[in-house]
Amino acid sequence: MTDTNRRVIFAKRPEGWVTPDCFRVEDAPIPDLADGDVLTRNIVMSVDPYMRGRMSDRKSYAAGFELGETMNAGAVGEVIASKNKNVPVGTVVNGMLGWETHTLVKGGAGLMPVDARAAPLSYYLGILGMPGFTGYYGLLNIGEPKPGETVYVSAASGAVGQVVGQIARIKGCRVVGSAGDDEKCAWAMESCGYDVCFNYKKVDSYAKALREHCPDGIDVYFENVGGEMLDAVLANINPYARIALCGMISQYNLVKPEGISNIQSLLINRAMIRGFIISEHFDGLPGFIADMTGWMKEGKLKYRETVAEGIDSAPAAFIGMLKGENFGKQIIRVGADPA
Amino acid sequence: MTDTNRRVIFAKRPEGWVTPDCFRVEDAPIPDLADGDVLTRNIVMSVDPYMRGRMSDRKSYAAGFELGETMNAGAVGEVIASKNKNVPVGTVVNGMLGWETHTLVKGGAGLMPVDARAAPLSYYLGILGMPGFTGYYGLLNIGEPKPGETVYVSAASGAVGQVVGQIARIKGCRVVGSAGDDEKCAWAMESCGYDVCFNYKKVDSYAKALREHCPDGIDVYFENVGGEMLDAVLANINPYARIALCGMISQYNLVKPEGISNIQSLLINRAMIRGFIISEHFDGLPGFIADMTGWMKEGKLKYRETVAEGIDSAPAAFIGMLKGENFGKQIIRVGADPA
Repeated sequence: MTDTNRRVIFAKRPEGWVTPDCFRVEDAPIPDLADGDVLTRNIVMSVDPYMRGRMSDRKSYAAGFELGETMNAGAVGEVIASKNKNVPVGTVVNGMLGWETHTLVKGGAGLMPVDARAAPLSYYLGILGMPGFTGYYGLLNIGEPKPGETVYVSAASGAVGQVVGQIARIKGCRVVGSAGDDEKCAWAMESCGYDVCFNYKKVDSYAKALREHCPDGIDVYFENVGGEMLDAVLANINPYARIALCGMISQYNLVKPEGISNIQSLLINRAMIRGFIISEHFDGLPGFIADMTGWMKEGKLKYRETVAEGIDSAPAAFIGMLKGENFGKQIIRVGADPA
Repeated sequence: MTDTNRRVIFAKRPEGWVTPDCFRVEDAPIPDLADGDVLTRNIVMSVDPYMRGRMSDRKSYAAGFELGETMNAGAVGEVIASKNKNVPVGTVVNGMLGWETHTLVKGGAGLMPVDARAAPLSYYLGILGMPGFTGYYGLLNIGEPKPGETVYVSAASGAVGQVVGQIARIKGCRVVGSAGDDEKCAWAMESCGYDVCFNYKKVDSYAKALREHCPDGIDVYFENVGGEMLDAVLANINPYARIALCGMISQYNLVKPEGISNIQSLLINRAMIRGFIISEHFDGLPGFIADMTGWMKEGKLKYRETVAEGIDSAPAAFIGMLKGENFGKQIIRVGADPA
C-alpha cells in the first residue's frame, strides 16, 4: 500500500470561466486514522455542473469549496483501512470523496455501500446515481409528463438529459432535445429516446428552432441551461406548461446573468417553474432504483460516459464538461476496480 | 324607458400607454331583442388591469377587443327587457357587459343573478367578485401561506392586494406591501392588514427596501407588478418560496418587457412561480363566498373603492387605474341602484 496521496487543491477562485490555474495538483502523505475513520482508495469520480457554484463565494445551495483545500465530488472507492466497524476493509462505497487518490473519511460519514456486481461502478455516479435521479425526479415529479405531450430538454446528451429523454419516451411523450454538436444530437436520437435533437450552435434563433421542432408547443421543459434558451422556451410553451429548473449551466460562468424577457408567458399560459435540488428528495430513491433497474432489464435504457484517466486529468475534464466537451456523463477513472 | 344607448367604442390600438383617443363615446339606438335575448340597464362597471392586454393584438389569455366595437367589462345591471324566460325583467345580474348604459345580451349568455340585498352591488365587482376571488385563490392555493411566514404584495392597496393582505393577516402571516403613494400605504396598514407598506416611488432600490422590510426574507409573493420589482423579490426570497403570478401591470404598457436577471434564485431556493387566471377556477367560488362573507360578518375584512360617475368617465378612469391613480377598487357608476 502506497503512503502517498495525489490530490487536486482548489487554488484560485474563478471569475467567469474556470481556468486550469484554479487548481494545483500535489502529493501529500496519507494521514493517520483516528477511531471511527475510514480510508478509501478512490476508483471512479464524478464532475458535475453544480460544482461551479461551489467555487464562487456567492451564497448557493451547496457548501462552497475552501481555497487551499482538496476539491471534492461524488465518487466510488474501496475501503483499504478502517477504524470503523460499520465500514470494514473491502467495502465498496459511494460518497463525497476528494479529488484525490485516497480519502480519509472522518467517522466514515456519508458513505453508502454499493453493489459492485450489479452494475459498473461508474453507473452509481450517473444513471443510477445523482444525475439519473435528478432527471427522473425532475421529469416525473415536476414535469408530470402525459402521453402525447411535448417534452423539451436543453442538454439532451448530458448525464441528466440522456435519462430525461429516455424516461419521457417511456412515458409516451414526443421528446425534443438540443445539444452542442451534431454527433451528440445524432446519438441522442439514436440512443436516448429523442424524436428530434438539434444543434443549438447551428441555429440563428433558439425561439425559431423551437417553433420548428415543437410545432405543437412545449408542455414540459427540463431546464439545464438558462439564459437565452429559457427565454426562447417561454416564447413557445403551451398552456399549463411545467418547467423543472434543475440547472443553468449557461449562466454559471457569467459575471452578470443574462436577462429573461418572456416571464409574462408564465401568466398568459398559467405555467409553472419550480427549482429543485435532488439531495432534498432522497426519500424517492427506492422508487427510482426500482424503476430504473426494471427499465434497464427490459432494455429500455441506454447510457453513455466519457472517461478521463487519472486524477491529474480532473481539472481539464471538469473545465471541458463546463464547456460541453464531454459526451454523456463525465467520469474520472482514478484507480482500478476491486479485484 | 329610453331608446338611446350611450357607449364607449374601442377606436385605436394603444402603443405603450393607453391614451384618451383610443376611445370614442357615442349615442346609438337600442337594438331590438330576438328570442332568448336580454336587455340590461347597467348600474356599476369594473375596469381592471387585464383589459390592457385585450387592447393589444398580441396573443393573450382573454379574447382581444375588436376595433370599432363597444368595450366590455365585468358589470352589474338590471334586466329591463327580456325575451328569455330564465332571466326575467327585474333580475339583477353580474356578467360581461358593455362600456355602455344598456347592453343587449345575446341569448342571455353568461349572466349570473346577484343578491342585491346582501351587499352593495359594486362589491360583486370587487371584494366578492373577480378581484377578491383572484386574491383569495392565488394567495391560498398557490402561495399556501403558513403562520409566521412573510407575505409580500406588490400592489397592496389595489382591488386584489387589499384582499390578499387581509387574508394573509387572518392566516397569521407577517404582511408586507408596497404602493405608489403615502396615503395608500397608510391606509393599507390601517385597514388592510399590512404590518408594513412602503412607497415604492420613494425608495432608491426595491431590493434594498425589501431587505429592510422583510428581514426574515420573503416566503410568499403575490405578483401584480412584474419587471424590476419581481427581480428584487427574487433576490430576497427564502428557500421554498412560492410566487403567485397574477399580473404584471408594470409591463403591460411597455413595448419591450424589462428583463429579469435573478431567475437563478428559483433554483438556489427551490422556489416556484405559477401563473394563474381566475376564470379557470370558478369551481372554487362557493368556498370563496362562504369564507369571505364569514370574515365580513366577523368584522375581519374592510374594503375601499374609487367611484367614477357616468359612462363618459370610463376611459379616464381606466387610464388612471393603469397609472395607479385609483385608491382601492376602481368602479364606474353607470346608473342608479334598482328602486
